[in-house]
Amino acid sequence: MAMAEAAERTDVAALVREMGRRARAAARVMANVPREAKDAALLRAAQALRERRAEILEANARDMAAARERGLSAAMLDRLMLDEKRIEAMARGLEEIAALPDPVGTELARWTRPNGLDIARVRVPLGVIGIVYESRPNVTADAAGLSLKAGNAVILRGGSESFHSSRAIHAAVLEGLRAAGLPEDAVQMVPTTDREAVGAMLRLSESIDVIVPRGGRSLVERVYAESRVPVLAHLEGICHVYLHEKADPTKAVEVTFNAKMRRTGICGAAETLLVDRSVAEELLPPVLARLIEAGCEIRGDETVRRIEPRAVPATEEDWSTEYLAPILSVKVVAGIDEAIDHINTYGSHHTDSIVTEDREAAERFLREVDSAIVMHNASTQFADGGEFGMGAEIGIATGRLHARGPVGVEQLTTFKYVVRGNGQVRPL
Amino acid sequence: MAMAEAAERTDVAALVREMGRRARAAARVMANVPREAKDAALLRAAQALRERRAEILEANARDMAAARERGLSAAMLDRLMLDEKRIEAMARGLEEIAALPDPVGTELARWTRPNGLDIARVRVPLGVIGIVYESRPNVTADAAGLSLKAGNAVILRGGSESFHSSRAIHAAVLEGLRAAGLPEDAVQMVPTTDREAVGAMLRLSESIDVIVPRGGRSLVERVYAESRVPVLAHLEGICHVYLHEKADPTKAVEVTFNAKMRRTGICGAAETLLVDRSVAEELLPPVLARLIEAGCEIRGDETVRRIEPRAVPATEEDWSTEYLAPILSVKVVAGIDEAIDHINTYGSHHTDSIVTEDREAAERFLREVDSAIVMHNASTQFADGGEFGMGAEIGIATGRLHARGPVGVEQLTTFKYVVRGNGQVRPL
Repeated sequence: MAMAEAAERTDVAALVREMGRRARAAARVMANVPREAKDAALLRAAQALRERRAEILEANARDMAAARERGLSAAMLDRLMLDEKRIEAMARGLEEIAALPDPVGTELARWTRPNGLDIARVRVPLGVIGIVYESRPNVTADAAGLSLKAGNAVILRGGSESFHSSRAIHAAVLEGLRAAGLPEDAVQMVPTTDREAVGAMLRLSESIDVIVPRGGRSLVERVYAESRVPVLAHLEGICHVYLHEKADPTKAVEVTFNAKMRRTGICGAAETLLVDRSVAEELLPPVLARLIEAGCEIRGDETVRRIEPRAVPATEEDWSTEYLAPILSVKVVAGIDEAIDHINTYGSHHTDSIVTEDREAAERFLREVDSAIVMHNASTQFADGGEFGMGAEIGIATGRLHARGPVGVEQLTTFKYVVRGNGQVRPL
Repeated sequence: MAMAEAAERTDVAALVREMGRRARAAARVMANVPREAKDAALLRAAQALRERRAEILEANARDMAAARERGLSAAMLDRLMLDEKRIEAMARGLEEIAALPDPVGTELARWTRPNGLDIARVRVPLGVIGIVYESRPNVTADAAGLSLKAGNAVILRGGSESFHSSRAIHAAVLEGLRAAGLPEDAVQMVPTTDREAVGAMLRLSESIDVIVPRGGRSLVERVYAESRVPVLAHLEGICHVYLHEKADPTKAVEVTFNAKMRRTGICGAAETLLVDRSVAEELLPPVLARLIEAGCEIRGDETVRRIEPRAVPATEEDWSTEYLAPILSVKVVAGIDEAIDHINTYGSHHTDSIVTEDREAAERFLREVDSAIVMHNASTQFADGGEFGMGAEIGIATGRLHARGPVGVEQLTTFKYVVRGNGQVRPL
């Protein structure tokens, strides 16, 4: 590393540290701000997004031109692209967040001890959130909005591709904060595309309470590998649909089709179909025909290929592969034991669904499958904070601590114990 | 590092990895065990502790002899020492844990979506807990009991000083598991005193879901610095008592005295007293006299030393020092703003208490002090799971994620979303 480069890296780390220090101070203020001020900031920011439309589109045009020059894929370009409709969607998103109840101050539990101490567990903001994302500029508004609503400060680090777009969106959010008299340091954006800034954030455990990565597998892997700060994320969504021997044939077809094909690129899309041996001959032909007609590739074990000759052979690797594409691995199992064992072994603890009319089997599946979201007779594509009624989400977490499943406003809070006494002292 | 030593370290790491693999398998079983089996195991383990008394005392005698030979301090020897009373206390502890409600399966929330999906947030075990502790052999029984009750598997790594004592206690716990037909792998103890085993546990993020260190500052610091696994712990308890201008003089004396002097060596002991300037002349003389008479050293700022000449000067360092000894730093503040700011700046986010008869000031303190536990007119020494009515605790956490404050049975659980449908698919 050349000396100049080393000095620059030190500067980036120092810059991020200083942002962290300011975020912590802002978080202290934000924790005690009334709902009205937070919602006013969100509504004003939404309005500012609309008013600054031209400016945002111009910034996005610069990013898009640079991305085309760098030869980014059509999918990447689509993620990066903003138009009037997408700007309006961001603005509406902020308005919807403003309409959500304020989680801060909610009493989660309250009880009185025999000595008269009154103890309450009260929801409070998490503190400082670090968001590391890639090419989608709308994450700037969504993440800022959710963090702000929950009374946190946030440090945003967008991808270099969306740098100008995100800056323009950030300016609108700052306008909202200013209008509501809230500290601008509550929503900071790292002003450099130097990748070292991400490393500096991942090491900043004294000032950042949790890191939420939003992006592709390599970003999430890097964050998991390097972070000294707790992470809320999922690396992959290897979601299963299991057709139990008592599955209703119509539900089997509809749930499997929707779980796989509604959108194949989202983390809640099904990647593996399991089916009980006793009903494979009956259920697989209509289920697989529907998928194949829609252009889905089927990778099956021997029995599956015998039943549906258009299926290609599945290898061991297929059971732990997240395709994010119109491909489905299909396996015949002896029964619910093998199905649960398969899911707990090969799955990613994200979302898994059983199709059955047998309530007892369903309850056993719901209890024993060790995933953030377990479902009965429903499409795995419902794995979404909005669909859960939680309002917007910043992502889905598959870790076991703090938040599992959709990470929305509530999941960006923690709690404290409030103890009210009248002079109690603890006996010796 | 000699080659033989390097090979041995590899062996230790492999051993710990294998323990982790077996713990994960046991955790799957434990997650679905009915309350009756878990409680039967706890009660049988309690009985086994009593029956194996002689064996446990003999093992402890070996540890004590080795510790004396190594010249351990009297305090360390006291922590290590077991007698019939302490064994009985451990047995009772397990019986009390058995009597607690089973947290697993509790519905934390449940709602129905407009499309008919029924969504429940259900408490489930955390998974695999790693406990790293030092010289107190009773942690073996307490940690095993709490983890078992919450349906987890646990890997225990006791200190080398308590190795034989902990093994003897562990044998009693295994007897309980066997008697109840539960997997012995649910409570494993690292069978070596090699320090590398701790490092191996801290890296085992695929098999250990959370690490709880129990011990002195250097152990907790090492765990925080090295762990790739989330940690529930506190590094220190710099707890404050703040005497507001509307403090009741008697409560001021009693709460301060108890918070500091009931036991000076626990994390909930007060280390700093703040007092409003307007009442310092009135309150400090009786408050400090009571402390000094009991042998407490007072380190005060200039005003404090003028009011109480027996006080010695406090330095900047005192405000961030956890004495764990009969020493109290005392500072006069202009009012509640300065008090809250001081606590949020110098404290350790553990437990802080305001003494006042002014309800509005109290509520402001409770809201704005950013600590796991905030109190009004109560001694900070109530910071304890038992005193909170949570049953036994494995420690106090000052981090912001997942668990804050006392870590008891409930805090060793997580949740999952259970979604019940009747064939719902997500619209395009």
